[in-house]
Amino acid sequence: MQNALKVVVIGAGSSYTPELVEGLLRRTESLPIGELWLVDIEESRWKAEIIFKLTKRMVEKSGSDMKVIMTEDRTVALKHADYVCSQFRAGCLESRIRDEGIAAKYGMLAQETNGIVGLANACRTIPVALDIAHEMETLCPDAWLLNFTNPSGMVTEAILKNSSTKTIGLCNVPVNMERGAMELLEADPKDFFIQIAGLNHLVWARQILYKNEDKMQFIIDEVLAGNDKMRPQNIAPFEWSSALIKDMGMLPCSYLRYFYASDDVLAKSAPTECDGVNRADVVKDIETKLFEVYRDPNLAEKPKELELRGGQYYSESACRMMNAIHNNTGEIMHVNTLNKGAIQGLPDDCAVEVSAIIKSSGAYPLSVESFPEDALRLIQTMKSFESLTIKAAINGEVGTALRALVMNPLVGTGEKLELALKDILLQNLDMLPTFQRQDIDLLKGDFSCSSL
Amino acid sequence: MQNALKVVVIGAGSSYTPELVEGLLRRTESLPIGELWLVDIEESRWKAEIIFKLTKRMVEKSGSDMKVIMTEDRTVALKHADYVCSQFRAGCLESRIRDEGIAAKYGMLAQETNGIVGLANACRTIPVALDIAHEMETLCPDAWLLNFTNPSGMVTEAILKNSSTKTIGLCNVPVNMERGAMELLEADPKDFFIQIAGLNHLVWARQILYKNEDKMQFIIDEVLAGNDKMRPQNIAPFEWSSALIKDMGMLPCSYLRYFYASDDVLAKSAPTECDGVNRADVVKDIETKLFEVYRDPNLAEKPKELELRGGQYYSESACRMMNAIHNNTGEIMHVNTLNKGAIQGLPDDCAVEVSAIIKSSGAYPLSVESFPEDALRLIQTMKSFESLTIKAAINGEVGTALRALVMNPLVGTGEKLELALKDILLQNLDMLPTFQRQDIDLLKGDFSCSSL
Amino acid sequence: MQNALKVVVIGAGSSYTPELVEGLLRRTESLPIGELWLVDIEESRWKAEIIFKLTKRMVEKSGSDMKVIMTEDRTVALKHADYVCSQFRAGCLESRIRDEGIAAKYGMLAQETNGIVGLANACRTIPVALDIAHEMETLCPDAWLLNFTNPSGMVTEAILKNSSTKTIGLCNVPVNMERGAMELLEADPKDFFIQIAGLNHLVWARQILYKNEDKMQFIIDEVLAGNDKMRPQNIAPFEWSSALIKDMGMLPCSYLRYFYASDDVLAKSAPTECDGVNRADVVKDIETKLFEVYRDPNLAEKPKELELRGGQYYSESACRMMNAIHNNTGEIMHVNTLNKGAIQGLPDDCAVEVSAIIKSSGAYPLSVESFPEDALRLIQTMKSFESLTIKAAINGEVGTALRALVMNPLVGTGEKLELALKDILLQNLDMLPTFQRQDIDLLKGDFSCSSL
Amino acid sequence: MQNALKVVVIGAGSSYTPELVEGLLRRTESLPIGELWLVDIEESRWKAEIIFKLTKRMVEKSGSDMKVIMTEDRTVALKHADYVCSQFRAGCLESRIRDEGIAAKYGMLAQETNGIVGLANACRTIPVALDIAHEMETLCPDAWLLNFTNPSGMVTEAILKNSSTKTIGLCNVPVNMERGAMELLEADPKDFFIQIAGLNHLVWARQILYKNEDKMQFIIDEVLAGNDKMRPQNIAPFEWSSALIKDMGMLPCSYLRYFYASDDVLAKSAPTECDGVNRADVVKDIETKLFEVYRDPNLAEKPKELELRGGQYYSESACRMMNAIHNNTGEIMHVNTLNKGAIQGLPDDCAVEVSAIIKSSGAYPLSVESFPEDALRLIQTMKSFESLTIKAAINGEVGTALRALVMNPLVGTGEKLELALKDILLQNLDMLPTFQRQDIDLLKGDFSCSSL
Repeated sequence: MQNALKVVVIGAGSSYTPELVEGLLRRTESLPIGELWLVDIEESRWKAEIIFKLTKRMVEKSGSDMKVIMTEDRTVALKHADYVCSQFRAGCLESRIRDEGIAAKYGMLAQETNGIVGLANACRTIPVALDIAHEMETLCPDAWLLNFTNPSGMVTEAILKNSSTKTIGLCNVPVNMERGAMELLEADPKDFFIQIAGLNHLVWARQILYKNEDKMQFIIDEVLAGNDKMRPQNIAPFEWSSALIKDMGMLPCSYLRYFYASDDVLAKSAPTECDGVNRADVVKDIETKLFEVYRDPNLAEKPKELELRGGQYYSESACRMMNAIHNNTGEIMHVNTLNKGAIQGLPDDCAVEVSAIIKSSGAYPLSVESFPEDALRLIQTMKSFESLTIKAAINGEVGTALRALVMNPLVGTGEKLELALKDILLQNLDMLPTFQRQDIDLLKGDFSCSSL
Repeated sequence: MQNALKVVVIGAGSSYTPELVEGLLRRTESLPIGELWLVDIEESRWKAEIIFKLTKRMVEKSGSDMKVIMTEDRTVALKHADYVCSQFRAGCLESRIRDEGIAAKYGMLAQETNGIVGLANACRTIPVALDIAHEMETLCPDAWLLNFTNPSGMVTEAILKNSSTKTIGLCNVPVNMERGAMELLEADPKDFFIQIAGLNHLVWARQILYKNEDKMQFIIDEVLAGNDKMRPQNIAPFEWSSALIKDMGMLPCSYLRYFYASDDVLAKSAPTECDGVNRADVVKDIETKLFEVYRDPNLAEKPKELELRGGQYYSESACRMMNAIHNNTGEIMHVNTLNKGAIQGLPDDCAVEVSAIIKSSGAYPLSVESFPEDALRLIQTMKSFESLTIKAAINGEVGTALRALVMNPLVGTGEKLELALKDILLQNLDMLPTFQRQDIDLLKGDFSCSSL
Repeated sequence: MQNALKVVVIGAGSSYTPELVEGLLRRTESLPIGELWLVDIEESRWKAEIIFKLTKRMVEKSGSDMKVIMTEDRTVALKHADYVCSQFRAGCLESRIRDEGIAAKYGMLAQETNGIVGLANACRTIPVALDIAHEMETLCPDAWLLNFTNPSGMVTEAILKNSSTKTIGLCNVPVNMERGAMELLEADPKDFFIQIAGLNHLVWARQILYKNEDKMQFIIDEVLAGNDKMRPQNIAPFEWSSALIKDMGMLPCSYLRYFYASDDVLAKSAPTECDGVNRADVVKDIETKLFEVYRDPNLAEKPKELELRGGQYYSESACRMMNAIHNNTGEIMHVNTLNKGAIQGLPDDCAVEVSAIIKSSGAYPLSVESFPEDALRLIQTMKSFESLTIKAAINGEVGTALRALVMNPLVGTGEKLELALKDILLQNLDMLPTFQRQDIDLLKGDFSCSSL
Repeated sequence: MQNALKVVVIGAGSSYTPELVEGLLRRTESLPIGELWLVDIEESRWKAEIIFKLTKRMVEKSGSDMKVIMTEDRTVALKHADYVCSQFRAGCLESRIRDEGIAAKYGMLAQETNGIVGLANACRTIPVALDIAHEMETLCPDAWLLNFTNPSGMVTEAILKNSSTKTIGLCNVPVNMERGAMELLEADPKDFFIQIAGLNHLVWARQILYKNEDKMQFIIDEVLAGNDKMRPQNIAPFEWSSALIKDMGMLPCSYLRYFYASDDVLAKSAPTECDGVNRADVVKDIETKLFEVYRDPNLAEKPKELELRGGQYYSESACRMMNAIHNNTGEIMHVNTLNKGAIQGLPDDCAVEVSAIIKSSGAYPLSVESFPEDALRLIQTMKSFESLTIKAAINGEVGTALRALVMNPLVGTGEKLELALKDILLQNLDMLPTFQRQDIDLLKGDFSCSSL
């Protein structure tokens, strides 16, 4: 099959992979895949092997002749690839668990794409993501990189700014909003339109239309009435401020609860050092169970249990994106891409998450109407947090990392912040190639070696 | 047929109308029209009647049960309309002929959408266009206004800024670029993509892709080699500066020859007072012949001769737009609509001409990558010329009109300009309700009453 | 004395007034004042009378022939005034005490120019300030209004945007920075230059030069070493983050500790409901003692004790400003005035606090070099907080007030915020003419009438 | 005299130098100059020697002990300099004469700071100016470079963008406006204020105040009545459009006649190839006569005849600037410096000509109120012309040079422009180190070697 595509999955040991495989197998007619390469590192080999075997069983059952190859050698896999899905986790789940624990110790937000945990994650991940992107420049210069690796907004921006590799970032938040609104409206997709805009994990629906009628108010009322179909399953239910959301007239994504109901959310969800029940621990638990299921030699399909993991539509988005590019469909998807004027008040060369039409040549964002002043300032502030964090991650700048956190409205400032930053940087130091110990030591706080 | 649409054509006595009728009759399945109202004023009745009879013959021949009604009472026609096509000419062709003659007398650019002719045209037309838009606000608040009336960019902006009527401006320049590029590439439309951006009569193709390959350089080379399929038939062939266009790497629309080859174009095309062969005279001649043909009681279709008129695809665009809105197709068209951030460096609330997807709820522009500095400055300057002209037209401000012309790089400045402006305003005075004689008299120049 | 000036003090019962009087008496040669009008309201008559008598004794002792008049009739006082100093407190100190108590009850920032206390203060004060400005438009259209009334940045912006009265806002924070830096440098004023820029209570020194050498780093090091001469006496000592301030390379004003050391400052200074030791209570205590001193019929000069009040240089700034305007000196002062491009990234028509040269015709800001991204985002965010608060105050918009507070990084979000806002608006309701009870009731929270 | 200053004049053979010397001798008390170095190249030695001898006679007569040294070795002169006045002309007057002749041949604007003559001048001059600035970085890193070398706006921007040498550009246009307005008002300088803003040779007075009254309208009326005291003597009288200037309400500098009365000015002043009476020829004639006068061994002062040369106040500005910097006076002067936000709508890092206070540490521009849209567009367009021209000059980019000229509203476009550009670049080729012959050959036009 001469025109068959080569797809590479980096971080293939992820529990999400079976969903991706299922999506690919469902599209074999429009998206003819010849080879599926599963790449992961030594530390994750046991998981990658379980996934590899399950994938082979799924392919066989489907009757497809897609070849499945597992390797730890990334460069072999990337050679002549057509699509590369990046879903690795730098430092594995263990790092996330440790980082969330540090945040908890200081009573701070423990969320893997924001605050000190997000910053540490970015500092670990961005150098690896840039290595992959630079390898692709020579090994498969025509390939598309679809990035899911978190913190997705920052990783995608880092690649878009620093590599010529064609890159699109994807997230399941917008697609959950789209699906949720359609469900509430019982909408036929062809008469439905939603425009989403903002940053990764910081988007609003700017317009919701059904049969040419504005349904924004209806959806807002439903959500305020507790009927929040937009919320991904990994986010607990919570109550919006009715006065606030009605006055804005735009539907915020679930992650905006951190900004619009900060005291409530942090009070309820903030883990304490003693019980240690962070999101990362919950995820680890789910994962352990999932791999038990995946191991079953009789399983040859995506198991029901995967839905609990919370990332629904992640893989669906990846498959849909590959299909849209391959077939130049022009359909509208919600993607992370360079701003280039889509959102006013942000630089051209930063990453934004916006509705765009997808052609073979890439994503063409729909122009976004000016945001109200309060939303714009939040977007600008968080984008600056992200851009400074990327700069800190690439250059190992401790001062810039501190300034990035000081900007972030979800992170307090003062001595505790310096201690927390010093603590988390020191504990991650072996995975932060660009940072220097002596720079970190300038931060306040006295950490004896033994505590590290 | 209960859901049948009511379409109104204002300025129906135009020689273009048969093309529009033909387009509607070709789409009866997807675009079910119950009533087609042909509106024109007393002065154009003889033309409107010829059109009316030809239209009836065309409808009858097609077997459609569309009703055709002719009226001079605009308000009756607009009541409960679904689509209103505005293609009137304020002051009729006679005004255009006279204005172009005045421009010629002063050795100035004689072009109906630019310079002093465009300004006089805007001052005559915008008040009428606003009347129509305001009538629609109450008579048919859900209807779409499709504007072709020249100067189309300024008329559309005036309405978008001053009326709640849903309005889209259309022009045949972008569609000629699209068709021309496809012809040169022998392209299958489904694999072809062109993004167009700028202002009305001042657009560039920003991207031309075929089968996922960048074809900009190829198309530019063809055009420089004289193979300019993008040029509308009413624009004479001319030679671009190869050094300039290659360095820009964007394909300019044909009207940009006024800015990029100004001396050559003005030298060749500038009419002189003696021979008086203005474009308006040429058009008048074509029109006279066309109406001769239309009168033929055996004619029941759009005649071949119409193609010479120069506005190919005008009506095609109107029909395609009505269809896209009615059926929520999401297809890409090139339209005049509010900027709202599509082109950076221009205000949100000005009209731009950009590629957009068309939904039932309107046009959603694709975001436009930053223009190179020279193109941006030209766009900004001409947009300011337009916005000042609109302001002058609405408020009758002579000083603003002068300042608008002084900005325009195609119009010289100095005494001659003041004389020309005074001359053209005085000669149009009976059609300029907002202008005061005493304000005009402050301009340099001594025009005796007799000369007016 | 025919060219003698008429100076009006609104809120003359303030304990600061003697400093102002002293400043005026020291400048009689260059600033010839014929009449000094002391205006206050009925509720403050006892204080105004003490001030009036003390002022008369001071004038007499100085040998000046300045007339001193006390009145409650503002319009008589404003007639033909040359300079109007506005230093009133809407709702008197009692309102500030109550508001700070409400903030304390919810564990929130209790600061009269920020957070819910600042918002309530703005909502009470802005309508009164606008009344004064509008009266001046007719009673003394050539007069200058020098505003000290807090929240000074917002009050000044409200007037500048909504009145033609010539207005400059003054604050003692920049002048304390200037004096402090000069003291640390033991500088001769003529060789010293400091440029200050930002918003009221949110400024940085952008440049500190002495004898043509950059002294920024020296001053920063002194401040970090605990030698903070820039700090006004009413602000407690605290510790900056050395890593942060050194990396920024700009000296922040003392109020920036709220943003750069938020956890530390709030932890230490946050008053609790039980002990109730708010700043307002402290101030009340100082005032009581001051008026005891002022009452002494033997006192005929500004007493030493006034220095404890914390507002040093307030009145000094007012006198210096009147002198600079009257004599067209062109000296540099730090003022609140319309931005008009001085600080990039903010609208032209908002108020900023910047270094400016003072001419008879007003303040001409020095252009400000672009702020680093983190400082800019903070400035933009807090300016939007201010502008939304002003809008809420003028129009009585509860939703806008809530959105303003949600933007403010020093105010949490969620249920507690809605309760606090509802509480403080209800308790101020009799002084909020533009707000409607039913709008406030839409906020979360159940306050029985009795508690109000 | 140990603190005596070292001043260097580059291009000392200029006929202006005696004015500079006179200015320095008048300020010996406040500006103590120990050494005055006169630098020029071999080709200008005969003029430099005349100047040198005259200077020595002037110094002797004044009784000053300033040393005067003449050299062709720039590096010796620059070593440890305090102030460097750059007033050289790359290619000498002969190049200007030849370039203006080429422009005349094509019927184009022949003006040494604009159009093709200005572009050729920039391409010759900027590389030399950058050499000087780079030499200063090491030979006298603390010195100030005062640039008068034309095209002054472009040369100054090129240095400011590409060198760390402290640089201020000066021009006599703003100072002529200031003096002219004061003369019309019979104003005492201490009560007079004028704010000037724009680009070099493209400025407006934004405010004219005398004794705290707005005098803009008065001055405009005087100028329109023919009483134009603002016009430098080297610019012929001409008539503004009264309607235009009154509507703008800002006083334009004389060079704006090229933009606001283009047809009139070009018609009257455009030199023709046959008579060849260009400005350059006029200047040459004046110069020849001046040097005759300078030669007179009895002359020991600036002769009257110099006033005819047209550059009054050039040297006065230089002396005043050196004095203001040396003595940290804080006075307001009108200078070319980095924008950094002074004029909105232009990049931070371009050169603008604005009113600024002068301190030892440099120029601090007064913030400039937003320009009206038409003036802003002109400023932006001409700044882009300048910035592209600088880019072309530094990198030898022919395409960029063409695009710069196409943008310029005073230069037509089309074949004639390409011919003219090719002609002038070829004739200057030996002085354009960065340009390649083969790039120039790509322009239209067939120039045989003989014609060069």
